[in-house]
Parts: sequence; structure tokens; C-alpha cells
Amino acid sequence: MLTLYSYWRSSAAYRVRIALNLKGLSYRQVPVHLVRDGGEQHGEAYKALNPQGLVPLLVDEESGGVRIAQSLAILEYLDEIFPVPALLPGDPLERAAVRAMALHIACEVHPLNNLRVLQYLGRELGASEQEKSAWYRHWLAEGLAAVEQGLMAYGETFSLGKRPGYLEACLIPQVYNARRFDCDLDGYPRILALTARCEPLAAFAQAAPQAQPDAQ
Amino acid sequence: MLTLYSYWRSSAAYRVRIALNLKGLSYRQVPVHLVRDGGEQHGEAYKALNPQGLVPLLVDEESGGVRIAQSLAILEYLDEIFPVPALLPGDPLERAAVRAMALHIACEVHPLNNLRVLQYLGRELGASEQEKSAWYRHWLAEGLAAVEQGLMAYGETFSLGKRPGYLEACLIPQVYNARRFDCDLDGYPRILALTARCEPLAAFAQAAPQAQPDAQ
Repeated sequence: MLTLYSYWRSSAAYRVRIALNLKGLSYRQVPVHLVRDGGEQHGEAYKALNPQGLVPLLVDEESGGVRIAQSLAILEYLDEIFPVPALLPGDPLERAAVRAMALHIACEVHPLNNLRVLQYLGRELGASEQEKSAWYRHWLAEGLAAVEQGLMAYGETFSLGKRPGYLEACLIPQVYNARRFDCDLDGYPRILALTARCEPLAAFAQAAPQAQPDAQ
Repeated sequence: MLTLYSYWRSSAAYRVRIALNLKGLSYRQVPVHLVRDGGEQHGEAYKALNPQGLVPLLVDEESGGVRIAQSLAILEYLDEIFPVPALLPGDPLERAAVRAMALHIACEVHPLNNLRVLQYLGRELGASEQEKSAWYRHWLAEGLAAVEQGLMAYGETFSLGKRPGYLEACLIPQVYNARRFDCDLDGYPRILALTARCEPLAAFAQAAPQAQPDAQ
């Protein structure tokens, strides 16, 4: 049994939901409310499970209840334990290209535009809504331009040819976030085309924030 | 032949230098000055090599001159192409634990305390030196506390028992950064002890910022 500690709007949790669905793995979801009461992820109960105090967290009962934090560590774990269908390409060079793009999203865009960072900007630095929005768009634009260029390698297909995988599991949640913050994506036609290919697929539709049990 | 595009003070490049040294791989280093003239990484010449406009970048001539961005993608690539000695443990559960800690540093601490982010805070939000320093310490403390707890698993040894690897390649550069910004590390005795075990080793000493050809 796999259990995912998740929050409907967390784009890191969204990545893992997509990956689990792409592999056809069934899982139980436990919602962790990131906003209510100052954030359940900071509570003692949750921090005893995950000292990082973040979602997602995957618990694998078959492996002695091991708890795995960090969405990309979870994706790598799933690909090692349940190798078929794969999330990453088989060739080390292609794997590196996919990981470099996924990490660009996970390390250069998402951490800067995370809820806790936007909260800090307002609370500690007195940033206005307009300044927070400019901050958001700045880092998003820096990040997506590089991903747009990297996608040239895939043409009209997915990162695994006929199938989406690791790359799409990271990209589509970032696009969701960008739209949520009303960012203009017209400059990224390849990202938009790949998103349009993924969104109708059940693995993505069922992982979408609004389809989660804790969606509000 | 391996070529690393690097900057002496980039802690992401420092991670890769440690990993290359741990594997005993020889490599050529090409410095990319991140500050001079507004940053060489933004120039056309470098962006043609790496559209992400960041260091490090690894070029592997043996693999047709493939260019790999993102330090953790490079570490994974090195472990796949040159598997001995390994950077990651062999067991999937242990691999997941190491990756989760490394990603916590790479996704939750480092991106927020990157030079370009500190510059943005000053330039666009008018943050004072004191406010930038408070920002730095805040995210560092959030991040290191979780790593400190995760290190309980290793006792007096390294993440690979008798040898350091992936985890230490990510942790020691973060400690270097923390000291550079005068952060108090007394609350993290396991991190300090692991750092003290690593720093005298040649793989770490030769990767240190001040030992690089472009150090100033």
C-alpha cells in the first residue's frame, strides 16, 4: 500500500500524483492543509513523519513503511521499485536531459514561487501584491524560456516518444501554477503544445488539483 | 575528456567538482565569471552552450559532446556512466533517503540564497543588507534543521559507510556558503561533524572554492 501525504494545490504533490497514475499504481491520499491554522505541515504530528515539514511525502508499506520526502526523490524511487512503465528514458544522455529540465523547474522556478516564499516577501519585506506578482513572473519567465528551448528535442511527441513521463510530471504542474497566477504563456508554444497533449490523458486529469478530495 | 564550466564560488559547481574527484575522473575546468560584466553566464556565447544560463555545465566529449546542465543531473549521469566508485548507495530505500536530503538542500535552501535572488531582493524590493542577511539565515535554518535530523541514520560514518558520496557532495558546499555568510552552525552538530570528516579528504579539499584556478 502506498500513501501520499498531499495538498491539492501543491505542485510538488501534483508531480507525484501524475507519476503514480502514469505507473498505474493505486494509492491512498492523506491531505495536509498547507494554509489552515498556520499550516498543518508545521505541526508536530506531521513533522514526526517528515522533518522537512513539506508535502509531498510517500509512505511505502511494502518496504517497511519507509517515508520518502521530496517529489523528485519519490519519482526516482518509483522508477527503481516499479520500473515498468518507466518515467525516465533508458539512455543515460536522454535521462540527463530530462533530469536537467525537471531540476530546472524544481530548483530554479518552483522554490522561488512557493507559498512560503511569497508569504515571507509580504510579511518580512513588506512586498505589495504587485511586487509579489512581479517576483513570480520574473522567475517563471527565466525558467520557462530554458525549458521551451530544451523541448525542441521532442518535436510533436512526449519525452518518452509515445508516452509522457518524468519531464511532463514536472512541467504540467508548473504550467498550472503559471495560469493560476495569470502569467502570459504565449511565448512558450512548445510548452503549451506539450501541455495540451498531456492534459486530456487520465493520468494527468485525475492528478489535477481540482480533482483531489481536499480541493476547495 | 570531461569539461566543467564552473565558477569558483558557485556551490552547485562545487558539488560537481567533489563528485568528479570522488570518482577519480580528470576534467578540464572553464571558468564562467558570474559577476563580472553583469555575468558571463548571461552572454550569448555561454547561453548557446547552456540555455539555462547557469553553472555548472558538464560537457562529455566521449558521449558526442553532450552538454548536461543542473548539478544533480550531472551527479546522476556520472553515477550511471562511471558507476565505480558509486556516489549513491545501492539500496533503493537508502538512495531515496540520500536524494531527499540532497534535494532538500538543492531545492529548498540553495535556490533562495543564490546570488541572483539576493541581487533581485536589493534591486527590485529595496531590501537592505540586513534584510538580505535575515532572508539568507531564515531559509538556511529551515533547511539545515531537516538535514541535521536526517543525518541521524549515519552515526559516525559517511552516507556510504566508509566513503562519502552524493549527500556529502551537496552538503559541504552548503556549509561553505553558510560560513561565508557568517551563519551560526552550532545547532547542527551532526552536520559539523560530517563536514569535519569530509574537509580533509583530497576530493573535497581540491574541490574547495579557494583551490580553483579562477579564485580571487
